[in-house]
Amino acid sequence: MALIIYSGGLDSTVLLYKLASEGRAAGALSINYGQKHVKELEFARFNAEKLGVPFQTLDLGCLAPLLGDNSLTSSTAVPDGDYDDENMKSTVVPNRNMIMLSIAAARAIAIGADSVAYAAHGGDHAIYPDCRNEFADALAATLALCHYEPIKLERPFVNFTKADIVKLGAELGVDFSKTWSCYKGGEAHCGTCGTCTERKMAFRDAGVEDPTEYMG
Amino acid sequence: MALIIYSGGLDSTVLLYKLASEGRAAGALSINYGQKHVKELEFARFNAEKLGVPFQTLDLGCLAPLLGDNSLTSSTAVPDGDYDDENMKSTVVPNRNMIMLSIAAARAIAIGADSVAYAAHGGDHAIYPDCRNEFADALAATLALCHYEPIKLERPFVNFTKADIVKLGAELGVDFSKTWSCYKGGEAHCGTCGTCTERKMAFRDAGVEDPTEYMG
Repeated sequence: MALIIYSGGLDSTVLLYKLASEGRAAGALSINYGQKHVKELEFARFNAEKLGVPFQTLDLGCLAPLLGDNSLTSSTAVPDGDYDDENMKSTVVPNRNMIMLSIAAARAIAIGADSVAYAAHGGDHAIYPDCRNEFADALAATLALCHYEPIKLERPFVNFTKADIVKLGAELGVDFSKTWSCYKGGEAHCGTCGTCTERKMAFRDAGVEDPTEYMG
Repeated sequence: MALIIYSGGLDSTVLLYKLASEGRAAGALSINYGQKHVKELEFARFNAEKLGVPFQTLDLGCLAPLLGDNSLTSSTAVPDGDYDDENMKSTVVPNRNMIMLSIAAARAIAIGADSVAYAAHGGDHAIYPDCRNEFADALAATLALCHYEPIKLERPFVNFTKADIVKLGAELGVDFSKTWSCYKGGEAHCGTCGTCTERKMAFRDAGVEDPTEYMG
């Protein structure tokens, strides 16, 4: 059974559907680490309840003052553009994945799950050091030793593109209008930030209709 | 420069003095993860201010509901006795060290420190999976990959006994009466819980006078 780190974004919603369809979803944990796009957590709750997966949120907003001047948790503006642009480095929250996975492993131990699953995918970019495969492999080796019994790290989308994830989600019946990607957290998706740009392209490449309302 | 995980306990106070004496103490981070012995944090602030090391506390009390039924963060009673006793397993907070070190690494990145130091020592016991050397080695490999530049994991006491740490502390001029070990967090050290028992033995084995006031 798996404890899923579940943001309410497109990728992790498809992961939630996948594990629920396999009967392996022990719980979904949404972590608010002080990000501006807290809106995604509303969708997380909606989807977990729809699938009957025990859902819990954890507010780590108290971490924000520790994490320096990144644009997701501080007053620095979220940049527009592609992930390849140098200015996107400001969206890096230091060591975010390691913090979230460590806490998720603790929760997995507490509820008797033997694995932690997250939606890292092949489209994740090298500007995020903690999205690299070498990092995830080292983290998996650490989680295997963190408790009396090993905790496994599941990354079933690691060789998927975001378009592959959209395709799988469509097969599993995901309502993509109930997922959130935009870093800016407005009334609707902005349509211009890095993650909105990527979201649009994934639907187009997958040949799946995009139900998202974009402002631009 | 090192960011020190600093509880205000005996071991990490000696570590703080050691790194400060070497001019390598970039900051001290005390993490309250919902433990009952929050009293140690008062001593942490005292010692950091005395040494002029920037001090920060982080309240992770919000984690307590996630961490199940362990005696340090829940209503389960703290057991008396030696660490070797089976009942001491209830003092295991799931994955505590990995969570704390992940957050400390994030803080190190934010302040430009290139290492995280903690006071794991040879006397730490196998009932704590996240005190084992194999675990720490795996974690070090993970921290080396978590950011653009590697974050080092410093464990200078890993081959020390607790008595060795007391000896070093005496040489560095540590005021041991300003450190806290007892898991029960009463007015004075209880003198009977596992960590009090160990503290008494360390002073005796080191041949250093123990200034601690014990209730039993």
